[in-house]
Amino acid sequence: MVDEDAMGEASAPMRWNGWGDPAAAKELPLAVRALLPMLLGRVRKPEPAAELDEVELAPTRLGDADRAALAALVGAEHVALDGEARLRHAGGRSTPDLLRRRARRQDAPDGVVRPADHDEVVAVLALAVARDLAVVPYGGGTSVVGGLDPERGVHRAVIALDLGRLSGLAALDETSGEARLGAGTTGPEAERLLGAHGFELGHFPQSFRYATLGGFAAARSSGQNSAGNGRFDAMVTGLRVATPTGELDLGRAPGSAAGPDLVRLFLGSEGAFGVITEVRLRVHPVPAARRCEAWSFPDFATGAEALRRVAQLGTGPTVIRLSDEAETGVSLAQVGRIGKALAKGASAITVFEGEAALVAERHARTAAVLRDAGGTSTGQAAAEEWLHGRFSAPYLRDALLDHGVFCETLETATTWSNLARLKREVTAAITDGFAARGAKSLVLCHVSHVYPTGAALYFTIIAGQGKGQASSTAPAAVDEQLEEWGRVKAGVNDAIVAAGGTISHHHGVGRDHAPWLEREIGPVGLRILRAVKAELDPHGILNPGALITTDASRAMDASRASDASRASDASRASDASRGGATAGAY
Amino acid sequence: MVDEDAMGEASAPMRWNGWGDPAAAKELPLAVRALLPMLLGRVRKPEPAAELDEVELAPTRLGDADRAALAALVGAEHVALDGEARLRHAGGRSTPDLLRRRARRQDAPDGVVRPADHDEVVAVLALAVARDLAVVPYGGGTSVVGGLDPERGVHRAVIALDLGRLSGLAALDETSGEARLGAGTTGPEAERLLGAHGFELGHFPQSFRYATLGGFAAARSSGQNSAGNGRFDAMVTGLRVATPTGELDLGRAPGSAAGPDLVRLFLGSEGAFGVITEVRLRVHPVPAARRCEAWSFPDFATGAEALRRVAQLGTGPTVIRLSDEAETGVSLAQVGRIGKALAKGASAITVFEGEAALVAERHARTAAVLRDAGGTSTGQAAAEEWLHGRFSAPYLRDALLDHGVFCETLETATTWSNLARLKREVTAAITDGFAARGAKSLVLCHVSHVYPTGAALYFTIIAGQGKGQASSTAPAAVDEQLEEWGRVKAGVNDAIVAAGGTISHHHGVGRDHAPWLEREIGPVGLRILRAVKAELDPHGILNPGALITTDASRAMDASRASDASRASDASRASDASRGGATAGAY
Repeated sequence: MVDEDAMGEASAPMRWNGWGDPAAAKELPLAVRALLPMLLGRVRKPEPAAELDEVELAPTRLGDADRAALAALVGAEHVALDGEARLRHAGGRSTPDLLRRRARRQDAPDGVVRPADHDEVVAVLALAVARDLAVVPYGGGTSVVGGLDPERGVHRAVIALDLGRLSGLAALDETSGEARLGAGTTGPEAERLLGAHGFELGHFPQSFRYATLGGFAAARSSGQNSAGNGRFDAMVTGLRVATPTGELDLGRAPGSAAGPDLVRLFLGSEGAFGVITEVRLRVHPVPAARRCEAWSFPDFATGAEALRRVAQLGTGPTVIRLSDEAETGVSLAQVGRIGKALAKGASAITVFEGEAALVAERHARTAAVLRDAGGTSTGQAAAEEWLHGRFSAPYLRDALLDHGVFCETLETATTWSNLARLKREVTAAITDGFAARGAKSLVLCHVSHVYPTGAALYFTIIAGQGKGQASSTAPAAVDEQLEEWGRVKAGVNDAIVAAGGTISHHHGVGRDHAPWLEREIGPVGLRILRAVKAELDPHGILNPGALITTDASRAMDASRASDASRASDASRASDASRGGATAGAY
Repeated sequence: MVDEDAMGEASAPMRWNGWGDPAAAKELPLAVRALLPMLLGRVRKPEPAAELDEVELAPTRLGDADRAALAALVGAEHVALDGEARLRHAGGRSTPDLLRRRARRQDAPDGVVRPADHDEVVAVLALAVARDLAVVPYGGGTSVVGGLDPERGVHRAVIALDLGRLSGLAALDETSGEARLGAGTTGPEAERLLGAHGFELGHFPQSFRYATLGGFAAARSSGQNSAGNGRFDAMVTGLRVATPTGELDLGRAPGSAAGPDLVRLFLGSEGAFGVITEVRLRVHPVPAARRCEAWSFPDFATGAEALRRVAQLGTGPTVIRLSDEAETGVSLAQVGRIGKALAKGASAITVFEGEAALVAERHARTAAVLRDAGGTSTGQAAAEEWLHGRFSAPYLRDALLDHGVFCETLETATTWSNLARLKREVTAAITDGFAARGAKSLVLCHVSHVYPTGAALYFTIIAGQGKGQASSTAPAAVDEQLEEWGRVKAGVNDAIVAAGGTISHHHGVGRDHAPWLEREIGPVGLRILRAVKAELDPHGILNPGALITTDASRAMDASRASDASRASDASRASDASRGGATAGAY
């Protein structure tokens, strides 16, 4: 169930260098401004961020012939080479993305192409191969892991393939509870289209207002209601995919043993194997009832144990999440603002949605478990406040950045038995990393998703400025800030891998996590990904550097350039990069 | 929860040419013998099946050097080249498998190798590549789709890699509810090992007593409790895999967005990509309570609609299944014997297991939905009788074959809205297929598994003899019978594909379904499978002909033989077979 206020703002184009609707931008609350110096030391406010029209881009590498060829496929009005269109497709919304844009350090794709449908996507991919163009599939632009960087690799130019026109409800099977939607359909648009028939998707990541169904699938999204409705992975019953060497229409039955489930190979493929053009999804009737309740636990460990019991018993909450003591204190995750100390201990949110009698039963059963595990109900109000503000937190980041305060999020997951260790190691990596540069930081954490065998941890990081660090949007100062964060983030990734966590629970790999992927799936796992990519995208035009490390992409491209036979190259490249990666990463 | 009687017989070695424990073999009940002529016309009883020691096998192609090399890796006592060992590893338990063995038409592997652990599997694979031996990974021997045929392809010989010694509980994380078990652990052994710690796996396919965890994973098994506990796919949290070119240890967190979930690429890989040596699984406490209830519906359509509502509301049955009118009439699926007319209409079984209060709630909620949808409770007894006899049905097949009655099962799945059509088309393909040969047949069907978006249909086929068909275990007569069934089965597979079903919901692809796989996943899907196989198993030694069609395997092998560079061949072979398959299958 999605509230009207969550839907309302989605029609406005996203800020080019920040989050969401420009009209919804927030100033930093006074209470927070008062609190920050105490937490982070003195933070100097930098000069204002650059405006879009102040950014000078490198000229496009696309010529008139490219433009004409693309226009012949999708129509001239759907090929844009102007600076604004290019900057608006220049990457995702990680904090480094935003810092770069604020400082005019942003590269941009050479053009933006907006195909109308699956067949036009197929045609654009063929043209891209023929004209040596890299292609970055682009949905809502909400990647926070560098999944949308305009990287051209060794290709002549790079285009952003904006899938916004592949939007809409292609079919709804009300009996089976299954819908086919265009991959470019945004979260709110999907809910609106399904809602007209009495159905909902019920997938609410924080990016909900802007992200697209194709993006959810390509990056293996998980949402706030995933405890009840499942990860996006679990909702997908089929995919239509265009690759440079052929098309796929996958997913034939609700359960199958007809070989490996190839749908799962494209979930998480991040545009590196093909372009998802259509998503088939399990949908369900708009919930008839909702019940919310907030809880307080003496500490995070007690709360985590309570959530474990709920997940393992399967008492059926739609949403269940638990903030640690730091996050509870500043209530950032709950109300979208810092500074209101709601409670001591660790607070949790539960929401139940569905048929009225089931909601009542599940609520009662879950409440009994939470009480028994040491929780105290704090009533409905705090839970409803969280629901109301749940898509607003990213706006706060922009306000913090305006004030020179670094703010970023990251996430991981592990088994229940390993949760405390992983939380400790990640927190230490963050605080030690900033401290090494003389900067104070504050780490807030919550359990964002639960499973019978484990849970996901979501960290919010706020950091002040290091000793002697310039507070400026001047390029050199931003480069220094990006380098500092890169070092901290690398330490965190190392800590996650060493502590047995996954490098990402729901943000994806992109380019930011790609160097760590081999340590998660092993060298043979990486060889499998490269073999699949070589088979489907032998020229390596699709999102080069995303998912599979840039070095590998470059090796593959270099090998391709020097040899006529695509098949043998791809394997050779794979061998070459494999050796390199093994020597490097281990 | 598994009953003692289900566990008890598992220690006896399986009949070499039939199902299960020889001591548990059943004569055909008198009532059934009286009924059969009415249903199927006159059926002549063939001469008795061959005994194991009457079968003359082709001499093994393994020489002393092979034996010595294998013995050096696993110990001489774990390398068997004798006829009995070879025949006991000669394939699975489909009806064609059993008919061949009854008629002394069975090929056998050239030897049986029993490695002790993961490292020995790795070593055997390396040796197999070096000595040009095909390797068929062998768990419980319960494949019914030709997944275990001793096919050597173009290799010098073929060995069965018996994983029975990779048995046991390697680790149990009680907090996370996660266990690591050897791939060769059988269903009963897994339950015994976990039960000692108060946990259960709760996966009960009909093959439960003999099948192994590695086999469940490799063939994407689904069990009778999958409505509550999920398919085996959903239970697997990690896999350890040995391939001829490297090892994998996959599955790092309960949820992840670290690229595509490669665990899912090995679930359903049927030994063609690698050998699964260890399985990490979600387990849960042994259920404290169980409640059973049987139901009667006026007809199958009404019952199916009731099951749909239960699945979509998520009222939580552990088992829910619905027999059609024919199956209800003979009650085959419920009590393991034909001839006892229990009820008119369509009967259903529900079972609820878990914590007592949840069981009571789920039972009450489900019962309300079933009643509201037109069902009438017929009490606990029939449901308990089904539970008691649920692993016994395969024994009945042996008794029918003894009497010259053909008996086989097959299964598929589709969306709820397409279920009636798929059932109708499959039934027609079976009855028309036998009728074309002048044979009468009886088709029983039940909904075996439910999902929010659809369900699986499980068909049991009993057929008499065609006009002029010899009733004999003489080779020529059996060849004729196999050819007849092959024709019927091909018609069924065509009908399934045309009607939008999956070629298998839980039996797998093996060699029997491989020719239809391309019509399910498309030519690009098949190219992906071939690319992965070429990367991991470039010499094509692993289970040649299973999953990926024999023609493709042969093309791959032929190409390998003629060229030194493994990588380029694999791609070329893939191209060649792709072209052929496209021309042939479509």
